[in-house]
Amino acid sequence: MAAFSLLTFLSDFGRHGAYVAACEAVILSVYPEVRVLHTNHEVRPGDTRTGGLILERVAPLGPPAVHLAVVDPGVGTERIPLTLRTSRGDFLVGPDNGLLTGAAAALGGITRAWALTAGEVRREAALPAEQVSATFHGRDLFAPAAALLARGIPAHSLGRETRAEDLVYPAPPRCAEDSGHLQAEVVEVDRFGNVSVAAGVEHGPLRGSAVEVRVEGSSRPPRAAHRVHTFADLASGEMGLLEDSWGMAALVLRQASAAEYLGVETGDVISFSALDVQSSRQDSLPK
Amino acid sequence: MAAFSLLTFLSDFGRHGAYVAACEAVILSVYPEVRVLHTNHEVRPGDTRTGGLILERVAPLGPPAVHLAVVDPGVGTERIPLTLRTSRGDFLVGPDNGLLTGAAAALGGITRAWALTAGEVRREAALPAEQVSATFHGRDLFAPAAALLARGIPAHSLGRETRAEDLVYPAPPRCAEDSGHLQAEVVEVDRFGNVSVAAGVEHGPLRGSAVEVRVEGSSRPPRAAHRVHTFADLASGEMGLLEDSWGMAALVLRQASAAEYLGVETGDVISFSALDVQSSRQDSLPK
Amino acid sequence: MAAFSLLTFLSDFGRHGAYVAACEAVILSVYPEVRVLHTNHEVRPGDTRTGGLILERVAPLGPPAVHLAVVDPGVGTERIPLTLRTSRGDFLVGPDNGLLTGAAAALGGITRAWALTAGEVRREAALPAEQVSATFHGRDLFAPAAALLARGIPAHSLGRETRAEDLVYPAPPRCAEDSGHLQAEVVEVDRFGNVSVAAGVEHGPLRGSAVEVRVEGSSRPPRAAHRVHTFADLASGEMGLLEDSWGMAALVLRQASAAEYLGVETGDVISFSALDVQSSRQDSLPK
Repeated sequence: MAAFSLLTFLSDFGRHGAYVAACEAVILSVYPEVRVLHTNHEVRPGDTRTGGLILERVAPLGPPAVHLAVVDPGVGTERIPLTLRTSRGDFLVGPDNGLLTGAAAALGGITRAWALTAGEVRREAALPAEQVSATFHGRDLFAPAAALLARGIPAHSLGRETRAEDLVYPAPPRCAEDSGHLQAEVVEVDRFGNVSVAAGVEHGPLRGSAVEVRVEGSSRPPRAAHRVHTFADLASGEMGLLEDSWGMAALVLRQASAAEYLGVETGDVISFSALDVQSSRQDSLPK
Repeated sequence: MAAFSLLTFLSDFGRHGAYVAACEAVILSVYPEVRVLHTNHEVRPGDTRTGGLILERVAPLGPPAVHLAVVDPGVGTERIPLTLRTSRGDFLVGPDNGLLTGAAAALGGITRAWALTAGEVRREAALPAEQVSATFHGRDLFAPAAALLARGIPAHSLGRETRAEDLVYPAPPRCAEDSGHLQAEVVEVDRFGNVSVAAGVEHGPLRGSAVEVRVEGSSRPPRAAHRVHTFADLASGEMGLLEDSWGMAALVLRQASAAEYLGVETGDVISFSALDVQSSRQDSLPK
Repeated sequence: MAAFSLLTFLSDFGRHGAYVAACEAVILSVYPEVRVLHTNHEVRPGDTRTGGLILERVAPLGPPAVHLAVVDPGVGTERIPLTLRTSRGDFLVGPDNGLLTGAAAALGGITRAWALTAGEVRREAALPAEQVSATFHGRDLFAPAAALLARGIPAHSLGRETRAEDLVYPAPPRCAEDSGHLQAEVVEVDRFGNVSVAAGVEHGPLRGSAVEVRVEGSSRPPRAAHRVHTFADLASGEMGLLEDSWGMAALVLRQASAAEYLGVETGDVISFSALDVQSSRQDSLPK
C-alpha cells in the first residue's frame, strides 16, 4: 500500500537542462502513480536558505507528502544525505545542510531522522548499486529514496537512524531591535520586486504611520515608507511598508520594484527607524 | 461526485518564488485528485491583457475544466473576485479586471456570474476564515474557490450571483483600416521574436505580395515584409508577413527576432501599407 | 486499452507564451487520463542537437512512454513528421531533423518508423482535418499524434511506414584525439556554468592530474584544470576537470561558472593537452 500519493520537489537545478526531468523520470520509474508537485527549481544555485524558506512556506499548505529538496553545494563530500519524519507525518528528503530543518519545524517538528545509504536506496529501487555519480545525488540517491518512501518502503530500510540534535541547523536571519531601531535581513525578493525581511510588523519602529529605511553598507540616502494595508493604498512611486502574505514586513512600490528602488537583494540588512509622518510624505519618490 | 477532473492555472507570479506552488498546494489540500495544467505563470506583472489572451487561446483546446487565472494588480481593493460559468460548461475564477472575459467568450459566452465571498469560500474549504491576506488572494481565495468548484461545490455556495453586464470588459486592441492603411496593435511577441497583431491577414493592405511596415512613434525607417506561408519561404534576414497559428497577421524573420528588428513590444501599434513588390525585395535586410 | 500512461514532452517553445499549454490541452482533449512529464521547454530556439541530447539522457531513466519532441525550425516545409518505435517499446514523435535519433538509440534502437499524415492524425483525434497551421505543428499534428499513440491507436493508422535508413541523422559532435591533444565540442553548459564536452575522461590527455585548456578561436590565454572527483576537491576559483553525471568530461569551478571563466557556449571546441601539475597549480585562478 502506498504511503503517499504526493511527492513535492524543490531544487536549484533550473528549468534549462535535463536535471529536473531526470529526477522526475527516476521517481516515475520507482513509483509510476505518484503525483509530483514542482515547488520550485529556480532557487539561486547553492542558496539553501531561500530554498528552505520556500519549502517551509509551501509544505504545510498541502496534504501530507514526501518532500524532495536538492540544493546541494556539498554534493560528493561527507555531508549526510537525510530523510526526516515530521509530526504531521510528512517525510523530508535532501542533504544535511540546513535546507530541511525549517520545513520540518513548520510541519510540527522532527520525530525521527535517518542517514540514507546509497547502496540500500539503490537496491530497494532496483537500480545498479555502483552507478552513483559524484555530482548528481538528486538523480542517483535523493529522487529514488523519496519515491521509495512515498511508495511505503520504511525509512529504516534506506539507511541508519541518526539523531535530530546532530543535524546542521542554519543560523536564523538577522532580526534585532534596539533603542527604536530595527535591523532585519532581507529574506525574500519576489518577482514584483517586493522586499520582505525577517521581522513581523509588530516591531516598535514599524508600528507608526511611516518609517525611515536605510540599507546597511549602501551609499544611497535613506528612504521613507508609509505603513499601508495593500498596494492600492500607495500613490505611484510611493514606497509602502505592509504585512506580506506570510506575516512578514515587506517594502513595496505600486507596480514597480522596491528591490530596484532600494538596490537590495536577499541577505542584505535593512535598518528601520520610526519617522514623523509629516516630514516624510514628500521625499519618498524615486529620483 | 467531482464535477471536473481538470483545473488550469495561469498567473503572473513567475516561477522563481513560492506563489505558484503555494496555490497548487492549497488546491490539492481541497481536492487531492484534481489534475492541474499550468497554462502560464510568466505573464508580465499586471498584464491582464496578455494573460487574458493566453487563457482565451488555450482553454478551448482542452476538455471542460475550471480555469483559475490570477493577474491581479488590484488585489486588496474593491475589485470583485469572480467566478463565471460558460456555455461550454467551464468555470473561470479570477479577479473582475477583464482577465476572464475573452476566455469566457471563446468558451461560448457567460451563462452565469457570481461574486465570490471569502468567508464562504474558506468555510467550504475548511480553512480558517480570518486568514485572508491583503496581497495574496490567489492562495487565500481564488485557489480554494477553483478547487471547490472542480470538486462539485455549487457556485452559489461560494458567493452571490451578479450580472454579466456589470463585469469589467477590456477595450479591444487597436485595429483600424483606412484608405489603404491598416493600424493594428501588437498583441503577442513570442519566444522566437515573432510579432502578432490584432488583425487577420484578410485586411486589404495585407493582401498583396508585400507590405510596408511602420512602427508608430518609432524613429526607425519603414521596413518591407513579404507575404509568405511559412518561415522557410524566407531568405535569411528577410522579413515576412504570415498568418500565425491563431489566425492573426504576424511579422517574422527566419531564425531571428522580428521584434528586435522592429524594436516593438506588446501594446505598440504598427501601420501597414500595401507595397509594390519590385521595389521592396532589396531593402528588407536588417542593417 | 491504453498503451502508455506516460507522455513526455520537450520543445523549444519557452514557458512565456501559450504554445506549451496549447499542446498539453490538445493532448488532454485526446487522452484525458495520460500523465505528462515536461522534460524541457527552454531549449534554445531551433537547437535540435541540445534538445536531442536532453531527450536521449532523460527518456531511458523513466518508464516506457510516448516521447513528444518539437524543436522544428523546418515547420511548414517538406521535412517529414515522424513517429519511431524503439526496442524498449517507447514511441518517439517529432520532426525528421535529427532530434529523435539519439534518444531512439538510447532506447535500444529504432524497430519501425512511420511518416505521420496530418489528415489521418486529425481524423483519429476527431479534430477538424483542415485546421492545420503552417507554423505550429506541435499543436496541430505532433501533440494529437502522441496522445493517440499513448491511447493505443496503432501507428499505421496515423501514417505510412518509412525506412529508418532514410531518416535524418545528426553529425556526431567533434571529438578527435591526436598526438597528445584532444579536441572536443562543448555539448552542454548547465545552470551552474559547468561545461561538458563530447568526450569521456578516459582519453589520454585527460588522464593525468592536470590539463591545459584552450578554446578554439578564442583570444583568451590557455587555462589549467586539475583532475578532481567532485566540486569540493577544488579551492575557490580553481578550475577542475571531472567526470560529469552523464559520464562526460566537464570543466567546473567551485560555486562559479566555468563557462563564463572560459567564455564558451554549446558548439564551441575545446583543446585539451596534458599538463605538468607542478607548473599548473598557480596559474589557474581567474584574473
